[in-house]
Amino acid sequence: MTNPGFRLEHDLLGDREVPTDAYFGVHTLRARENFDITGISIAVYPDLIRALAQIKQAAARANQKLGLLDATRADAIVAACREVIDGNLHEHFVVDVIQGGAGTSTNMNANEVIANRALELLGHARGDYTKLHPNEHVNMSQSTNDVYPTALKLATYVGIFRLIDAMAGLRGAFERKAVEFADVLKMGRTQLQDAVPMTLGQEFSTYAVMLGEDEARLQEAALLIREINLGATAIGTGINAHPDYAPLVCRKLAEISGIPVVTAPNLVEATQDCGSFVQLSGVLKRVAVKLSKVCNDLRLLSSGPRAGFGEINLPPRQAGSSIMPGKVNPVIPEVVNQVAFEVIGNDMTVTFAAEAGQLQLNAFEPIIAHSLFKSVLHLTNACHALATHCVEGITANRDALRESVARSIGIVTALNPYIGYANATEVAAEAHASGRGVAEIVLERGLMNAAQLAEVLRPEVLTRPQPIPTASARAA
Amino acid sequence: MTNPGFRLEHDLLGDREVPTDAYFGVHTLRARENFDITGISIAVYPDLIRALAQIKQAAARANQKLGLLDATRADAIVAACREVIDGNLHEHFVVDVIQGGAGTSTNMNANEVIANRALELLGHARGDYTKLHPNEHVNMSQSTNDVYPTALKLATYVGIFRLIDAMAGLRGAFERKAVEFADVLKMGRTQLQDAVPMTLGQEFSTYAVMLGEDEARLQEAALLIREINLGATAIGTGINAHPDYAPLVCRKLAEISGIPVVTAPNLVEATQDCGSFVQLSGVLKRVAVKLSKVCNDLRLLSSGPRAGFGEINLPPRQAGSSIMPGKVNPVIPEVVNQVAFEVIGNDMTVTFAAEAGQLQLNAFEPIIAHSLFKSVLHLTNACHALATHCVEGITANRDALRESVARSIGIVTALNPYIGYANATEVAAEAHASGRGVAEIVLERGLMNAAQLAEVLRPEVLTRPQPIPTASARAA
Amino acid sequence: MTNPGFRLEHDLLGDREVPTDAYFGVHTLRARENFDITGISIAVYPDLIRALAQIKQAAARANQKLGLLDATRADAIVAACREVIDGNLHEHFVVDVIQGGAGTSTNMNANEVIANRALELLGHARGDYTKLHPNEHVNMSQSTNDVYPTALKLATYVGIFRLIDAMAGLRGAFERKAVEFADVLKMGRTQLQDAVPMTLGQEFSTYAVMLGEDEARLQEAALLIREINLGATAIGTGINAHPDYAPLVCRKLAEISGIPVVTAPNLVEATQDCGSFVQLSGVLKRVAVKLSKVCNDLRLLSSGPRAGFGEINLPPRQAGSSIMPGKVNPVIPEVVNQVAFEVIGNDMTVTFAAEAGQLQLNAFEPIIAHSLFKSVLHLTNACHALATHCVEGITANRDALRESVARSIGIVTALNPYIGYANATEVAAEAHASGRGVAEIVLERGLMNAAQLAEVLRPEVLTRPQPIPTASARAA
Amino acid sequence: MTNPGFRLEHDLLGDREVPTDAYFGVHTLRARENFDITGISIAVYPDLIRALAQIKQAAARANQKLGLLDATRADAIVAACREVIDGNLHEHFVVDVIQGGAGTSTNMNANEVIANRALELLGHARGDYTKLHPNEHVNMSQSTNDVYPTALKLATYVGIFRLIDAMAGLRGAFERKAVEFADVLKMGRTQLQDAVPMTLGQEFSTYAVMLGEDEARLQEAALLIREINLGATAIGTGINAHPDYAPLVCRKLAEISGIPVVTAPNLVEATQDCGSFVQLSGVLKRVAVKLSKVCNDLRLLSSGPRAGFGEINLPPRQAGSSIMPGKVNPVIPEVVNQVAFEVIGNDMTVTFAAEAGQLQLNAFEPIIAHSLFKSVLHLTNACHALATHCVEGITANRDALRESVARSIGIVTALNPYIGYANATEVAAEAHASGRGVAEIVLERGLMNAAQLAEVLRPEVLTRPQPIPTASARAA
Repeated sequence: MTNPGFRLEHDLLGDREVPTDAYFGVHTLRARENFDITGISIAVYPDLIRALAQIKQAAARANQKLGLLDATRADAIVAACREVIDGNLHEHFVVDVIQGGAGTSTNMNANEVIANRALELLGHARGDYTKLHPNEHVNMSQSTNDVYPTALKLATYVGIFRLIDAMAGLRGAFERKAVEFADVLKMGRTQLQDAVPMTLGQEFSTYAVMLGEDEARLQEAALLIREINLGATAIGTGINAHPDYAPLVCRKLAEISGIPVVTAPNLVEATQDCGSFVQLSGVLKRVAVKLSKVCNDLRLLSSGPRAGFGEINLPPRQAGSSIMPGKVNPVIPEVVNQVAFEVIGNDMTVTFAAEAGQLQLNAFEPIIAHSLFKSVLHLTNACHALATHCVEGITANRDALRESVARSIGIVTALNPYIGYANATEVAAEAHASGRGVAEIVLERGLMNAAQLAEVLRPEVLTRPQPIPTASARAA
Repeated sequence: MTNPGFRLEHDLLGDREVPTDAYFGVHTLRARENFDITGISIAVYPDLIRALAQIKQAAARANQKLGLLDATRADAIVAACREVIDGNLHEHFVVDVIQGGAGTSTNMNANEVIANRALELLGHARGDYTKLHPNEHVNMSQSTNDVYPTALKLATYVGIFRLIDAMAGLRGAFERKAVEFADVLKMGRTQLQDAVPMTLGQEFSTYAVMLGEDEARLQEAALLIREINLGATAIGTGINAHPDYAPLVCRKLAEISGIPVVTAPNLVEATQDCGSFVQLSGVLKRVAVKLSKVCNDLRLLSSGPRAGFGEINLPPRQAGSSIMPGKVNPVIPEVVNQVAFEVIGNDMTVTFAAEAGQLQLNAFEPIIAHSLFKSVLHLTNACHALATHCVEGITANRDALRESVARSIGIVTALNPYIGYANATEVAAEAHASGRGVAEIVLERGLMNAAQLAEVLRPEVLTRPQPIPTASARAA
Repeated sequence: MTNPGFRLEHDLLGDREVPTDAYFGVHTLRARENFDITGISIAVYPDLIRALAQIKQAAARANQKLGLLDATRADAIVAACREVIDGNLHEHFVVDVIQGGAGTSTNMNANEVIANRALELLGHARGDYTKLHPNEHVNMSQSTNDVYPTALKLATYVGIFRLIDAMAGLRGAFERKAVEFADVLKMGRTQLQDAVPMTLGQEFSTYAVMLGEDEARLQEAALLIREINLGATAIGTGINAHPDYAPLVCRKLAEISGIPVVTAPNLVEATQDCGSFVQLSGVLKRVAVKLSKVCNDLRLLSSGPRAGFGEINLPPRQAGSSIMPGKVNPVIPEVVNQVAFEVIGNDMTVTFAAEAGQLQLNAFEPIIAHSLFKSVLHLTNACHALATHCVEGITANRDALRESVARSIGIVTALNPYIGYANATEVAAEAHASGRGVAEIVLERGLMNAAQLAEVLRPEVLTRPQPIPTASARAA
Repeated sequence: MTNPGFRLEHDLLGDREVPTDAYFGVHTLRARENFDITGISIAVYPDLIRALAQIKQAAARANQKLGLLDATRADAIVAACREVIDGNLHEHFVVDVIQGGAGTSTNMNANEVIANRALELLGHARGDYTKLHPNEHVNMSQSTNDVYPTALKLATYVGIFRLIDAMAGLRGAFERKAVEFADVLKMGRTQLQDAVPMTLGQEFSTYAVMLGEDEARLQEAALLIREINLGATAIGTGINAHPDYAPLVCRKLAEISGIPVVTAPNLVEATQDCGSFVQLSGVLKRVAVKLSKVCNDLRLLSSGPRAGFGEINLPPRQAGSSIMPGKVNPVIPEVVNQVAFEVIGNDMTVTFAAEAGQLQLNAFEPIIAHSLFKSVLHLTNACHALATHCVEGITANRDALRESVARSIGIVTALNPYIGYANATEVAAEAHASGRGVAEIVLERGLMNAAQLAEVLRPEVLTRPQPIPTASARAA
């Protein structure tokens, strides 16, 4: 006797009551009990849920075409999948984001929800699997071991391009600042010590260039990610799949998803290998490292307001302290730094999980997926925040920057070709000892006249390569 | 004019409308806008929310005792804090788990919720901060820079002991299996190659011992975690705090929380240093490494059922495959492996964030907290799952194990002292070439008789040190 | 008065005695004293020493062409560089592999050795820098900040292709084994549980495919590595360099080194960015992860000889134990695993060092270089060892493997389309309970006849996709 | 026929010629061929070589006492061991630092060198193992699996205390600077923004405190490291060892080494567990993280000389640039940063290797040892360099620091209790807008008189907790 409000389902462990109104079934139920780890269900990753439905839809059509699945069932499965792709039923994907079983529970959850919704659409009761079966029909010609990695790749692919868009937005913000600050002369620094002059525009343009390069790396990683193993079934040998299935389902999936997926040339290899995830994670780590470096610079350049570098001003976003009146902190770069640290940690998790794969399968793909999804999403949001809440509002302390060049000792480097290294060294020494400016000392010593000096110290002269006096003049 | 349903609040950036029914205020509002990173709010960490309220309660009482805060306000603050400690109002802690500002937004969120609830209890409207102010009164004698790390430590402390409990439960499960399997003889392995005999009980007892050692390491880490810096205020110099405040608030907090907190001897150091978090994270990584190793072993020992080691059976928890009838997978060890990989990644995040601290403060404590909270929670749940869903139901294939010893070549090591190394080597070589058993060959060659052999091959003789024949007998 | 056996040199810190016969000078001397960390000098990286000399040679010719350096000095510098490129004088590169100063000490060491050797060739005494100066002439138009990263890139480029060669060698070994084992039927495994049949040849071919993919990734990384910043001088603005110098020196360097170097489009960015090193390190980590996975598999498949998988035999390389007669261990895969773990750790070091770069320069390139050089060298040697000492000698236990398929339960999956899922499940259950074989039970039950069964269980049928009986036959 | 200059040795793989004058034998020879990875032999770790000899000596005496080894052989083995302990014969320890086989090759190398030297001392030829055998006698009652980890622990223990000494030296240097700078008032900073005043002495004292705490953590880790598993033999069951051997050899080893070693309570666990290495590595990572943070601070505080913080001056150690006259860089902190990054990477390697242990042994201890030895040695040298070459010579720019406090806005925080938060905010706003000083504005507005202000702004008042005006005065 089944309790009221429940239906009975069966698996190899025996019978279990499932709530009548649940779209999921017994396999999902057991998975929830087994994996009570994070309290967070896979529904937090809608790209993944959509990808699963796209795959099930593609498989149904491929199976139908191969004469393995009748039109009635195929149509019902496709209709159910479309609802999921449209954003419905996601709340019925309830298994934990961290789960054992190599993604089987995620695949089973998808099979059950789609089967039960298809049953409804066909006028049957949920759980009446004799009419349409989660494994026999929704999962036909498939195995978790080809469906799950393919779904991860689709979801990741979508996320990568969302991230690239956010990075391009941030790059644009830096490029606009590079133009705005093109004529702001300042001291460049190496090893935190004053070096030689540059423009603030040059400084900001480097951030834009870095981002552009990383976008290119992500594009490359996306090319690897789109290689799928549908048709591999259990271990890549394609057991129980029709020889025409793999190319057919790949074509259908490309149509449905709009993603240019291709079938891997060696399906045994593709089923066990996590190389494309490791590669992507490595690129995300690279993005994180550079974003973090940029944010470190922004925080350093805006340090102060009085006892710091004080070169630029970040737009104030919130009060910085309850105890110190008027204190404002660089909170947006700080949150981006932290996302970067998280992404670097996630890469380590991915590395460990990939290395732990054994023989014909990597059982640890769920944590790889969880790590990658977080990295992609948080980096995307971090780029948005950095562009919108910070970079776009940055202003420069132009006068102070110009003055810092004028009173720098490093400027003497530019005079080397004109006054000689020996004189330059003496000037530098006197400047350091006396606290006076280099130009003042050069004029006082009559080494150059004011007009010459003004010429050499023009920003456009100081900040790019210049024709140099002849060798004989330079020879010691 | 304020819009209907809103009240007006003010901070250094100007005026903002806050929903009338919100317990949080303008600072929280701005933080939500600034930090839209994960979509997950700090309310997912109830231990942290409770810890914040405990600190605010302790501070109110300390300030009252020092004559800095009147009894009316102190009582109202305390009453509001108690509600939070009892689990209410947590849904009003809405700032993102990853946030810039060194935890200021979390502290501000707490100040605002507690102030507004206290205002209500006093019969005032939310937002009427002239009566009771989030910063002036709730945050009195405090700074984010002492409140926030102290709250992290309280929350972590509670979590550590919950984890220790879960580990003790798992240890108990292994200990019971060690007793159950005390007489099950099997081949030990080094480098995955057959070595010498041992008992399955000895194998399981090592897992229990490992866990016990890790519990001791966590206890040590907890001793460091309980050192707090309340009274440090902004940078540890205690500016704006009364000299008696630090010891007083520490005593109050110990009473309220039941945690034996102590004040750090050097508050400037304690305010910037994340050493105790790094230490704890390192210990959690150690726990993860060992749990993962144990799970690797369990998966290896239960590999099969026919083409594997097949020594033990893990209780089946769910169907393993839609395509392969009857396949059952080691899903519980697999999920524990994945939690371990996550914890190792989290440790890397903590390491990066700790290293990035600058001068008088580490601005990256929010990601440290987020990483540690996840590690502690997931490890706790993983230990529970491993004990309950796996270890307790493990059975041994006793006959197969006994037989594997009998037909092993490694057993010949035990005969060294009796038949000599040269004879032993010849026996081993013949066994390897012929596929026959060592004992059979020894008997056939008349090197020992059946009774001697039975004596030497008793489990209790094979699996522990034994008195050895005299040196002269052993000399080559 | 200078002590006998010494000459006097001078730098900004004052005078120092340098041994008369030293090719290095005062800057190198001070660097040795400052950086007494590892006891290992940069001479252990001959590719780096050669790269430095190639750069100095290219710069001398470029400076000569631009009229900045006279022919006499240029010729002497070039002659000295050629000696270094030919492998001489390396023992005079004595600064520590881990050093502060962003590589300045390495660059100074090169300038001094080349200058002193050039002085000798010109008939002058070592140290007579008025005739030819390490900084003025050997380092002309250069800065450590463009020379050092360029040298790292040349050295790394050479190393990458040496590694690719070693990987190709290993890939070849796996490919030959894949052919040799093409007809060896065995059980595939997922999650360490018996899955469905495959051939040992398929298993080994995956290792070859993985390596091939990683070779392609290394090729991509090499394309990024060949982008150099010569002409950037101090911070990328090209201060003190002639506008024609950058393209000229790049062309010369390509000729001398044979490496298709190109000048980075934005030299300010290229001077501070470590992106190409991070990318390469990520790819090396990917290679390590996969090599480690392959070695884990080899150790697992060769576990035994009796109480393990026992599928393949690794060639014995050395005695495995002093205490256990006849024990042989998988020592070659084990050493490759360890190299992989080292490379993964090195990647973490590179990540930290790259993230720590500040403003116009990354001061931590020496540890990046040290880490990358080790990773590339050790991986190269590990691939050689694995190919030569292990893979080439692997043999298969063909009979045992065939038998393991025959007595497997997993084989029942292949019968699904013929006897139906329900029958298959009953057969599997009986096989599991009784310990009997699937084929035997199928025949006994009259579900298929011996000829049909033999047909379906042929390796070429079991291990690839097959046309499947019609849908109606499959419907439940 | 053996070739001239060679002797013939035999192992399970057959005969091999060994150079007549080699102290090592056939097992070492094969290991060198198998493991050609780094080109660096274990002789670079003299603590390890000495530890091996101490263990062999202790074992010989224990075996002699148990009647298993005759006095003649025991005495010869002991004499040979003493030579090694005294620093001789180390060059005959030639196997690679990265090796497969769980340390077997290192143990075999030790057995062979000691046996051959003992043979010489007894008047026999090298290689005449019938007289005294590397395995039978030098390795008696032992296995690599107890000898090797014990040797690692002895060597590490010695290294830890050397590191603690170096850290104590560095701590002393910081403590002396803390005293020297006790009265130097400066602005503290949080999140790189000006916060409230402190003394430079307080800043430097935090570095001393951090080091002291880390020394304590290392002491704890050393307590775990001294737990050994001698007597475990192959897998911890003590097969082939006398029941009295374990306690006896432990006592002997403590006497010989002077290290208070203890025998692990569960030898099966102790033989497979790497927990104490993971713990130590975690603590070394903690040390690295903090040292790196300290060096980041030193580089930041000394940034300039003109366009930076310019608070302190590090002693110049070498010229910083060939292109920029007079530039001096913080090369010592930079090299310490890099050592820290290496140590963090090493910890990752240790983590991976520890996790990869399987069943009764961790085969990857050689890379764990290599990583730990490097970390301990390099940290020791880094601490020495930082103390001697940097911290001891640091000077403060006292006037600039004092002035930075005087013209800071942050100082207004200290006036809160005296002029009220509202007035303080107005003063801060005017200071920020006008660029004028807080004190000047306060005096001008008549909020406090000069004497009051001078009192409140005394360093000893600003930089510690103070009694605060009554609550009523503070209430809004």
